[in-house]
Amino acid sequence: MSDEEGPAGFVSYGIDDKPPIVTSVFLGIQHYLTMVGANVAVPLILAGALGMPESVIPRFVGTFFVVSGIATLAQTTFGNRYPIVQGAPFSMLAPALAVVGVVQASNPSGAAWEAALLQLQGAIVVAAVVEVAVGYFGLLGRLRSYISPVIIAPTIALIGLALFNTPQVTAASGNWWLLGLTLGLIVLFSQYLGGRSRAFKLFPVLLGVVVAWVVAAVLSVTGVYAPGTSGYVDLASVAAAPALMPIYPLQWGTPRIETAYVIGMIAGVAASMLESFGDYHAVARLSGVGAPSERRINHGIGMEGLMNVFAGLMGTGGSTSYSENIGAIGLTGVASRYVVQIGAAVMLVVGFVGYFGQLIATIPDPIVGGLYIAMFGQIVAVGLSNLEYVDMNSSRNVFIVGIALFTGLAIPAYMGNVGSAAAFREGMRGVAVLGPVIGARAVADTIYVIGSTGMAVGGLVAFVLDNTIEGTREERGLVEWEQATEDEGAFASAFDRFLRD
Amino acid sequence: MSDEEGPAGFVSYGIDDKPPIVTSVFLGIQHYLTMVGANVAVPLILAGALGMPESVIPRFVGTFFVVSGIATLAQTTFGNRYPIVQGAPFSMLAPALAVVGVVQASNPSGAAWEAALLQLQGAIVVAAVVEVAVGYFGLLGRLRSYISPVIIAPTIALIGLALFNTPQVTAASGNWWLLGLTLGLIVLFSQYLGGRSRAFKLFPVLLGVVVAWVVAAVLSVTGVYAPGTSGYVDLASVAAAPALMPIYPLQWGTPRIETAYVIGMIAGVAASMLESFGDYHAVARLSGVGAPSERRINHGIGMEGLMNVFAGLMGTGGSTSYSENIGAIGLTGVASRYVVQIGAAVMLVVGFVGYFGQLIATIPDPIVGGLYIAMFGQIVAVGLSNLEYVDMNSSRNVFIVGIALFTGLAIPAYMGNVGSAAAFREGMRGVAVLGPVIGARAVADTIYVIGSTGMAVGGLVAFVLDNTIEGTREERGLVEWEQATEDEGAFASAFDRFLRD
Repeated sequence: MSDEEGPAGFVSYGIDDKPPIVTSVFLGIQHYLTMVGANVAVPLILAGALGMPESVIPRFVGTFFVVSGIATLAQTTFGNRYPIVQGAPFSMLAPALAVVGVVQASNPSGAAWEAALLQLQGAIVVAAVVEVAVGYFGLLGRLRSYISPVIIAPTIALIGLALFNTPQVTAASGNWWLLGLTLGLIVLFSQYLGGRSRAFKLFPVLLGVVVAWVVAAVLSVTGVYAPGTSGYVDLASVAAAPALMPIYPLQWGTPRIETAYVIGMIAGVAASMLESFGDYHAVARLSGVGAPSERRINHGIGMEGLMNVFAGLMGTGGSTSYSENIGAIGLTGVASRYVVQIGAAVMLVVGFVGYFGQLIATIPDPIVGGLYIAMFGQIVAVGLSNLEYVDMNSSRNVFIVGIALFTGLAIPAYMGNVGSAAAFREGMRGVAVLGPVIGARAVADTIYVIGSTGMAVGGLVAFVLDNTIEGTREERGLVEWEQATEDEGAFASAFDRFLRD
Repeated sequence: MSDEEGPAGFVSYGIDDKPPIVTSVFLGIQHYLTMVGANVAVPLILAGALGMPESVIPRFVGTFFVVSGIATLAQTTFGNRYPIVQGAPFSMLAPALAVVGVVQASNPSGAAWEAALLQLQGAIVVAAVVEVAVGYFGLLGRLRSYISPVIIAPTIALIGLALFNTPQVTAASGNWWLLGLTLGLIVLFSQYLGGRSRAFKLFPVLLGVVVAWVVAAVLSVTGVYAPGTSGYVDLASVAAAPALMPIYPLQWGTPRIETAYVIGMIAGVAASMLESFGDYHAVARLSGVGAPSERRINHGIGMEGLMNVFAGLMGTGGSTSYSENIGAIGLTGVASRYVVQIGAAVMLVVGFVGYFGQLIATIPDPIVGGLYIAMFGQIVAVGLSNLEYVDMNSSRNVFIVGIALFTGLAIPAYMGNVGSAAAFREGMRGVAVLGPVIGARAVADTIYVIGSTGMAVGGLVAFVLDNTIEGTREERGLVEWEQATEDEGAFASAFDRFLRD
């Protein structure tokens, strides 16, 4: 792929480049910061649902960071080798919450939170084995030849768009002043000053978050922000945090396996695989390399499965590719894998050392919200930039792109209005004729979880329409698109690189 | 503008074309059907809030159709002359509900609903006079030279995207089976069969809605759909409807004017003007003509203001350009102004004849929802097709487009979470230093109403960023864009055409 194709003009450090070590450390921390919000939010939501004792929570959050660090190192070294951070997926949170709810309602013996967590771990491990199979047997990669930019554009755009209503951004109780400051600083550094100074161009996120955090900390210490409000920085909690935390596999006991829970979790894993498929295309485009080959996709998904098994054994909410740091690549032009690996090392350290973890946890929600707007907006537009391959004067293409984007927002909103997997199942069971089939737990739960994932809905709608409505390969952008896809030989698996002579 | 630019390839009948009369009548009815949902929803929401007696409601709904018919005839004949239907705006609904709430809380003498409606009418008339001034003094048109496709693309896309959560589409109680049938039929007719038969290509919406309605009516008569459920067609209500209804200006009495109410309504009108600005660009693009000139925009807004004054005198919720039928133009390729004028005549008849109005009102919400998905999806994609002028390998453009789309969804979601203009005002009043300014009623209400309108937020964000972040005119797409804009001489106002010899 030549430099004129794709937004390769963004890239200041390519995937294989290694910036100087000091620069790399700060760039690594910056990548890490982009995913902190999600990777703290998922464990806190789960801990709340589990009714986990306060004293256990720091270790639980630390476990998520340790898993993220190891999964990111594994993916960048032995997996698809893209500069992409791994973390706990939101798509697996819905089935996880369902599992927790059912287990707790059954009045288990011993601590309810431990019983639920062990069931959750078992469900994740088994669902993850399915993911390993999908990856290494090449089931997802085989779809690649049916995928045109008509499908890719709305699918990637929805990864970002679907997140518009995250609480850090839109909670009525949010401190919009602090959110605006953070976003304003990131925009100032990356867009207005980025051309004047290289430091601003490379570190807009790090600088924006740190400056906003200092402001919030000062306002908290001086009493302007009261404890409990959304802008408050609780510095005292850092001193009170444990120093080193013991984090190891099977730390809460032996996972338990129950078929009904596994099925729900497989739906969550399926949604996370579809999202990863989109993430790979987004990161490739922003890094200025061709779209991923079948082999690269398969090895990426396979490794995500292995790390999901690992996450299950450690006791977190799973593992998948994160889109947050993809946005940072777009903003800074730093696509270096080396930098992401350094970021992963930071995650490991932060995971084990309680002080660091708690310091990170003091970043107030509105700062995370400001960061999210810049990151997710970037992903939306990168997805849409794939339209350059598509003939938008063709009425079929316009129809497909539009309906994919619209349903990608509308169907999850409908699922949200229905409220829960159980309520949805109840509704499906009442449907005439089809009721017994679509009301079955496995079917209804899968529809509910996939239907709650915007990019999965939009991607599937576009996939079906684009492959059935008449259209030439040229019109669909497939001709140009194939030229912009890397050759199968471009990806060397870990086996090729380390074990074959 | 040549045929290669813009999706002119769609157009089977251009703006000035007149299809055969029978075809035109059915095409006109089809345009009319696209806007029925919104034009019935707004009066019903208002009537509910007003506590209007059941017996008055048919006449109230009829008044909305009469105003729509006259406003559409006026706009297509004496205004901007685009094939665009006029109807009651959602953006004016928020301030209208605020007015109603305050008046009713004040325990007015006489019927509370009449007192509130007269205040509402007064507020609309005065706010509309401001709109007339903005239009004919050319204030909005003057912005045109600062508007690039970097701004237009997300702005138009948001007109459609922002509507993803309309109750007809996402209500949990919705009959998704009927919604799916309607949408499926429209897709079948327009995309799969449209190439085989001209009837399917021209009438996908009309055929889809009529077939789905017949199915729903049969299921209702045979008792499969129970009264009160969302798919129920209440045929008995048609027979019970009044035959001819008296509808005339000042039919509920003399409007009253109160400054506080006027200010809120001006915010609603401002949002509706911004939306119309986007609508004009969308309809021009789909009709295969150049982007609107300054003069055309000014005459369009001016006429919307005049029709808003008229709407206030008649006692409806205002008048603005509707985006629904723009989607139908994309789907069918029929951009004929003549057809829209026939549709307007249909609206007039339906407004005065109770039987017809009630027949239309029997179309169940899920059918309207299916129609909406096809219409609004079309607008989203047409907006994005403007990206063909934009260099999406430029990091500034990617940033601006992405953040405009994301905030265009996120800020209205935030306003939704805050809940009401009053709650928002309360929050603004508490802000340090700025509180007294941004907490003032006029300022806070304006921010709230504009902030609740997705395309206004996205458009303003893109406008500010695109005009302040460094970028060449070529990069921003302004060079190609100006070639695709019609000359100022292309638009002849009614004065030019009828009065100047």
